[in-house]
Amino acid sequence: MTKKDTNIIYGRHPIMDAVKAGKAIDKVMLQQGIRGDYEKELRFLCRQNDIQLQVVPKERLNRFVNGNHQGVIGFQSLIEYQHIENVLPLVFEKSETPLFLILDSVTDVRNFGAIARSAEIAGVHAIIIPQKGAALINADAIKTSAGALAKIAVCRENSLVNTIEFLQNSGVQVFASSLEAEGLIQNLDFTHPTALVVGSEDLGVHPSVMKAADETFIIPQIGTTDSFNVSVAAGIMLYEVMRQRF
Amino acid sequence: MTKKDTNIIYGRHPIMDAVKAGKAIDKVMLQQGIRGDYEKELRFLCRQNDIQLQVVPKERLNRFVNGNHQGVIGFQSLIEYQHIENVLPLVFEKSETPLFLILDSVTDVRNFGAIARSAEIAGVHAIIIPQKGAALINADAIKTSAGALAKIAVCRENSLVNTIEFLQNSGVQVFASSLEAEGLIQNLDFTHPTALVVGSEDLGVHPSVMKAADETFIIPQIGTTDSFNVSVAAGIMLYEVMRQRF
Repeated sequence: MTKKDTNIIYGRHPIMDAVKAGKAIDKVMLQQGIRGDYEKELRFLCRQNDIQLQVVPKERLNRFVNGNHQGVIGFQSLIEYQHIENVLPLVFEKSETPLFLILDSVTDVRNFGAIARSAEIAGVHAIIIPQKGAALINADAIKTSAGALAKIAVCRENSLVNTIEFLQNSGVQVFASSLEAEGLIQNLDFTHPTALVVGSEDLGVHPSVMKAADETFIIPQIGTTDSFNVSVAAGIMLYEVMRQRF
Repeated sequence: MTKKDTNIIYGRHPIMDAVKAGKAIDKVMLQQGIRGDYEKELRFLCRQNDIQLQVVPKERLNRFVNGNHQGVIGFQSLIEYQHIENVLPLVFEKSETPLFLILDSVTDVRNFGAIARSAEIAGVHAIIIPQKGAALINADAIKTSAGALAKIAVCRENSLVNTIEFLQNSGVQVFASSLEAEGLIQNLDFTHPTALVVGSEDLGVHPSVMKAADETFIIPQIGTTDSFNVSVAAGIMLYEVMRQRF
């Protein structure tokens, strides 16, 4: 039932089977107005498996699947997501200094791919994204990452605030970029275990996530253009970490 | 004769008039097989005004203009190009430490726009591009630059090698990025007048341009992915200059 060059599956049985089998699915789209046992079971299983369920008009589904989708389609993950609780011990075991990149609401697929590329180059141990509101890791993201997404761990976590607390309790300092910050990035010490938080270009980092971080920082700026593109900003931050650690 | 939301002009008279009037034109496309007085005069005037003239099949022209182009179309510049000989003295007059960014064969329009955005933020005094083989500064480039292309000087020069010699004779050090270089960027001293050379992702910096530079450098790299995206790499270089000068 999988369409050739996409990661879309569709039809009532294939979706239910995939969800039940615990397959990695980014999102399920259910047609507006579908009610009954199927809908109830799907809702329950999606909640249980942390899969986003979105109710959409039939026309939206038709745009993805040119056939009989039976009112439900699913987007299979192109990568295997991991959890930070499992990744962090492995980094300490290798005696490396942990470096994580937390992406808060970076929804642009190409920016996400470019950031993954920079992260792999800079030796980031995992990219951490939220369960909801992150860029779908589709074929475009994989392509823009220049292969990096096949090599770097991506953790998808229910709550970034909880993840930050877990990192802090494990001895990882968490620094968030903010255009309102006063401290310059180069004045932070990145030689200790570090997680960097990068927000979306329009919204920045969520206030709750910002509050959970240990410190905020800004990249120096001379001109009057708003701010660096988010993938450029992430590249600069990662470079500064490498520079201090080299 | 100008199409609404583009910078394309077409038709024999409009093109000839624009070229004669010294209007800023990036490129003229002439249909294969057109010969005679018109062709000769156009060729002469384009050479005289440093305008690239490209001979293309009729089908190529048809893709740009859905009407009677009479075998010739021109791409008007959306910005006013400048010359480094005029820009450099102004920088010295303001008692600022010159910073230039030389883009060698960066042809991707979105990368060019993103680089212009970073350059304006980092206080670059001018972006220098070659007459031939640079990205056309079209509406996409302007948009990706987030307004920066309206604020930063862009110099279009016939020979980058000559431009580098001019800069060196004026006391500006020229550093080129190269994946083969051994020296790390953070070991260079950017507190003096500086021009940075960035090449395209696939081809890098031309050997002749590389040879003309004072030194080459590499951005540190830990992972195994090929290299940073060119706009991320440019952003990192500009950050390092700001960091040292702040």
